[in-house]
Amino acid sequence: MVKLRAGILGATGAVGQNCILLLQNHDWFELTYLAASPKSAGRRFREAVEGRWIMQRDIPKNIEDLVLGNVHDLKEALEKCDFVFSAVELPTKEEVKELEMRYAQAGIPVVSNNSAHRFTEDVPMIIPEINPAHLNIIPVQRKNYGLDKGFIVVKPNCSIQSFMAPIHALMSEGYFPRRLIVSTEQALSGAGYPGISSLAISNNTIPYIQGEDEKTEKEPLKILGQVKNKVIVNYQGLDISATCTRVPVRDGHTAIVNLEFYKRKPSIEEILQIWNRYVSLPQEMSLPSAPRCPIIYRDEVDRPQPIIDIYAENGMAVTAGRLRKCDVLDIKFVGLSHNTIRGAAGGAILTAELLLKQGYL
Amino acid sequence: MVKLRAGILGATGAVGQNCILLLQNHDWFELTYLAASPKSAGRRFREAVEGRWIMQRDIPKNIEDLVLGNVHDLKEALEKCDFVFSAVELPTKEEVKELEMRYAQAGIPVVSNNSAHRFTEDVPMIIPEINPAHLNIIPVQRKNYGLDKGFIVVKPNCSIQSFMAPIHALMSEGYFPRRLIVSTEQALSGAGYPGISSLAISNNTIPYIQGEDEKTEKEPLKILGQVKNKVIVNYQGLDISATCTRVPVRDGHTAIVNLEFYKRKPSIEEILQIWNRYVSLPQEMSLPSAPRCPIIYRDEVDRPQPIIDIYAENGMAVTAGRLRKCDVLDIKFVGLSHNTIRGAAGGAILTAELLLKQGYL
Amino acid sequence: MVKLRAGILGATGAVGQNCILLLQNHDWFELTYLAASPKSAGRRFREAVEGRWIMQRDIPKNIEDLVLGNVHDLKEALEKCDFVFSAVELPTKEEVKELEMRYAQAGIPVVSNNSAHRFTEDVPMIIPEINPAHLNIIPVQRKNYGLDKGFIVVKPNCSIQSFMAPIHALMSEGYFPRRLIVSTEQALSGAGYPGISSLAISNNTIPYIQGEDEKTEKEPLKILGQVKNKVIVNYQGLDISATCTRVPVRDGHTAIVNLEFYKRKPSIEEILQIWNRYVSLPQEMSLPSAPRCPIIYRDEVDRPQPIIDIYAENGMAVTAGRLRKCDVLDIKFVGLSHNTIRGAAGGAILTAELLLKQGYL
Amino acid sequence: MVKLRAGILGATGAVGQNCILLLQNHDWFELTYLAASPKSAGRRFREAVEGRWIMQRDIPKNIEDLVLGNVHDLKEALEKCDFVFSAVELPTKEEVKELEMRYAQAGIPVVSNNSAHRFTEDVPMIIPEINPAHLNIIPVQRKNYGLDKGFIVVKPNCSIQSFMAPIHALMSEGYFPRRLIVSTEQALSGAGYPGISSLAISNNTIPYIQGEDEKTEKEPLKILGQVKNKVIVNYQGLDISATCTRVPVRDGHTAIVNLEFYKRKPSIEEILQIWNRYVSLPQEMSLPSAPRCPIIYRDEVDRPQPIIDIYAENGMAVTAGRLRKCDVLDIKFVGLSHNTIRGAAGGAILTAELLLKQGYL
Repeated sequence: MVKLRAGILGATGAVGQNCILLLQNHDWFELTYLAASPKSAGRRFREAVEGRWIMQRDIPKNIEDLVLGNVHDLKEALEKCDFVFSAVELPTKEEVKELEMRYAQAGIPVVSNNSAHRFTEDVPMIIPEINPAHLNIIPVQRKNYGLDKGFIVVKPNCSIQSFMAPIHALMSEGYFPRRLIVSTEQALSGAGYPGISSLAISNNTIPYIQGEDEKTEKEPLKILGQVKNKVIVNYQGLDISATCTRVPVRDGHTAIVNLEFYKRKPSIEEILQIWNRYVSLPQEMSLPSAPRCPIIYRDEVDRPQPIIDIYAENGMAVTAGRLRKCDVLDIKFVGLSHNTIRGAAGGAILTAELLLKQGYL
Repeated sequence: MVKLRAGILGATGAVGQNCILLLQNHDWFELTYLAASPKSAGRRFREAVEGRWIMQRDIPKNIEDLVLGNVHDLKEALEKCDFVFSAVELPTKEEVKELEMRYAQAGIPVVSNNSAHRFTEDVPMIIPEINPAHLNIIPVQRKNYGLDKGFIVVKPNCSIQSFMAPIHALMSEGYFPRRLIVSTEQALSGAGYPGISSLAISNNTIPYIQGEDEKTEKEPLKILGQVKNKVIVNYQGLDISATCTRVPVRDGHTAIVNLEFYKRKPSIEEILQIWNRYVSLPQEMSLPSAPRCPIIYRDEVDRPQPIIDIYAENGMAVTAGRLRKCDVLDIKFVGLSHNTIRGAAGGAILTAELLLKQGYL
Repeated sequence: MVKLRAGILGATGAVGQNCILLLQNHDWFELTYLAASPKSAGRRFREAVEGRWIMQRDIPKNIEDLVLGNVHDLKEALEKCDFVFSAVELPTKEEVKELEMRYAQAGIPVVSNNSAHRFTEDVPMIIPEINPAHLNIIPVQRKNYGLDKGFIVVKPNCSIQSFMAPIHALMSEGYFPRRLIVSTEQALSGAGYPGISSLAISNNTIPYIQGEDEKTEKEPLKILGQVKNKVIVNYQGLDISATCTRVPVRDGHTAIVNLEFYKRKPSIEEILQIWNRYVSLPQEMSLPSAPRCPIIYRDEVDRPQPIIDIYAENGMAVTAGRLRKCDVLDIKFVGLSHNTIRGAAGGAILTAELLLKQGYL
Repeated sequence: MVKLRAGILGATGAVGQNCILLLQNHDWFELTYLAASPKSAGRRFREAVEGRWIMQRDIPKNIEDLVLGNVHDLKEALEKCDFVFSAVELPTKEEVKELEMRYAQAGIPVVSNNSAHRFTEDVPMIIPEINPAHLNIIPVQRKNYGLDKGFIVVKPNCSIQSFMAPIHALMSEGYFPRRLIVSTEQALSGAGYPGISSLAISNNTIPYIQGEDEKTEKEPLKILGQVKNKVIVNYQGLDISATCTRVPVRDGHTAIVNLEFYKRKPSIEEILQIWNRYVSLPQEMSLPSAPRCPIIYRDEVDRPQPIIDIYAENGMAVTAGRLRKCDVLDIKFVGLSHNTIRGAAGGAILTAELLLKQGYL
């Protein structure tokens, strides 16, 4: 099979770096183009990231000498790649929106990590296991903006990945959530590089992350919604309250979840069975990056833990634990996911795999 | 004024060490006796804690050569001190209960950090600002066990200090809590020494602390209760759900709190006013260790933070922040307290000051 | 006694913040003026440092509403203070040199933390215990630049403080160092704020700090030198080789020192005696910030340690340990000092105290 | 090829756990036997390590239900494995020596991580790239103790791995070291589990590790020595001075090295060439665990760093950097190796591969 040629917009940042590592030896995609800000454009990748490469493996040999393109110059992208992952950061969200739309209009599909288009009405926000059907909005999007081959698909915020699959699994079996209280313990890498000063977070926690409470309360409703009459209609009737905090851990977002259901309530035993057997479209399609088990439940009392569990299923699974009755709502549990793999670069790649298999790429 | 002679049972452990530092130059108490396990008894304090002194200030000069007594030998305690702080750890809670009772029976009042007697019916569990009236149970306790001068008073778990004063302040003004969901981010020092292995917690979080969820859900009800007919009657009608986690921070327990009231609900503005003006008996009595402001509210969006806020009011205040509406319950906020000062040794010393002022010591 | 009015140039940075805390309730100095970059000038201090206050105590009440001056505007400084501490950072060292000289020329003495003037021939680089006599160069400096009341004095780099006093103590007794190999483990706060990204240093060490090896090899020679014929002549015949590394510790620079003497070599026993009895001019003059014991030697095998020892003598002492024979050079030991107190703000304040007592302020 | 059956003595400890992970899917060895203390014997592996599994990947599926043998019971070992890795810990070194010798006498070759036999005269201490020829002592050892198939081989301390290969490479080309000053920054995992208390090391460094200075000064001399007249003769004329410190990093020992040569001295350029082309017997033999490049030199000024470099060549390479002239000795550089892979379990496995290839297993 001829591999699809992939590009990365914003290749020097944290998400871009992760994307580079995850695309090494990918079965379906070949990384052929890296773009960055005009300031970095024209430099070799290794030089451009000197002192800013923060991965725990070294730069792949075949990447280090790639010359960076300019994200604002679409001509090179058009020549060199079939679609792009966008991890671009610009001064305003408006600029990101415009730039990503320019790529789509030029015929280059965009799978974006940026939050700019997450609430654009006709842009699907995808977790492949949960709402693959939202891709049906793409033809509508194309029509609305007069797009031909191009389109924009986004992935949601990293803070919600640790609890969305467990909740979706329960919904799939008829247990609908009504109220959700969640507090998160989020990792340093979620803030990118340089991100948080070591003096701000060393031996400390910070009970606030700009914009995260709001994203955590709002994004799930779109993801759990449905495409109806050419529009994505939000899930109704779920109240979410979130407090997002930062902890001195490199990778892995933990969510402490309290959940109430509508009248039909699962027992603890049923939930465990549902989670253990949960698979969805990416598993059925055997997408290359799909975890065989999207939810791994740990029986041990003190799990999940970032250092032990984030790499489960190559960082693509959600690990859950501590499921028990809640004396205020119905149940409570702890979820964990790798924020830069499942929560960012890996989630985007899985989405691209789904798009390819569904014929959009 | 002649100072009261204080002893410490379990002086070599983490709480004991904190107690030693906090009693340096105390206005009312003089530290005259240190006791430890039979293994350490007879050794000079400095030698006994070599390699195990974990405070961030050095051992006070006047303490380092004190010869440790044996906690099981009451004779020396009777000669050398007027009352004791108990931070003793024994294989079983039953043994702690018995040992503390033996001191009380010998005429030595005990102010205990240990959890053993927290649910002994006629033992008050005191947060001096909240339930000083529970000391009225002491005469009943004395009668029940045939005690003369001695008695036992305990302080509650460190995990609840970060939210109890804020809730009590609201109750004092007629706003009664009905449902409480709390998750905690607890510090390393809460586990004592050696406590948690560095390999277990470095660059990690652990979503479980043995016994803490239960203590956090149960202890507040006794503390908020009332002495009626010679019995402490628990507060009724408050449901609490807790998830306690460990984070790699040396000192300072953070609580992320979601709270619902009964019908009468305060506005955000009212809560801030109530917290800001909150004082209680220890403040009115000007107890030496009492914080002038028991609750400090920070307006900054990203506070409270352990490294900045734990030493507010010498570690005796609770710092709160991020008060806002909750979309599931009524309000949410973040509380922080110094777990080994307000939450342990400092709380015990403030209780002893209250006992002295009230005539029990 | 009327207090001298002190100003801080660069008050919002890490050294400036430390300086503010250390000048609270100072016996001789009153903080009357804070200056910062033009961008911050005109704002109240609390607002200007919002999100950037990194001290472990809160902003002093009397400081938070001070309106920041502009470091480039000397007029306000002239009105409001008698001398300034400079912790200013500008794009180039040349600009710092010029700015500090403008203050001196305007009649405002400058005690600087900045490295710009450290090798200006007629500017003394002072560790008050070691080379107070270098202040004799001030009249020469004044003459050279046509200064009246003003002058510039600098303090050396934080990386050398952990071993300079121990070496000076030995020199004072006739034991002259010939070769020195030192490796340092330097704290995060040495890089200022935001300084090092948490992703760069969390769970990591970095074996390089820009410019530090060179400073560590070069500065001691000037400090140990002598004023001869109106010039500071470097100490001759000491070879120094340094490797400076960064470790994930908030405060406290550790130096691992291997040292060789000229022919006259002290025994381990003699060294201990010399260090224990070491005092110098600041101690004899009872300067307010002078540690009673400038060198504290710890007998325990595993000391000094940052979390236990940095606050010895309010952060102004050097703590040494592990003194023993070296199989390659003569002896080896480990030294530790608080990098932002003794190594920066505290060292500057002690220098100002010396200047006042010597009649220069 | 039929795989050799390997056992692990002390399988539940930190080195044992690493060994288990590294032997997964090994080309030549199959893990068939795990032994532990009598207390753990008879339990399934997963149960025995519950709460003590500290690896960053989960227990291999095929291992979790293995029932642990008793290290003191050789009968089971004899049935189940062809040789053993010893990571056993007993109250005294004497007991370890005896136990390992009992295995050898029973006909089971022992490759040991324990330090007990490191200075037993006829036991080779092996770094496969450096002194494979020391295996020639095995026949002597067998004769001395009347061993048939069995023998004992040990690997050296983890603290020396970061600089031994770089030095050996230079010796191979005729540049002989005369004086070596080294300070180390050693990782938490070097202390095993539970090892160091989080309260002892969090936000701290400790300038002392029991026994490490001595091992670091002594072991290299045996390794660099030669087998002459049936005895291993130490390398003569190299003086080593070491200071070993602990830093809050999970994995990776860093060595800061200052080195002097005998008369023949290499230039910086020559050293880089020598290191870059360095290969040795394990590379020539293509042993499965042998790194292709045993020494990786990084040009970047701020390398090597634990989080980026420890997994180079699957954790089996030494990464060096910062090579430059030393103003006291001749040169200085920084070396880094993965202490639990190259420095412990991986080093032992590579040694076993060498033994197999050489016909000893």
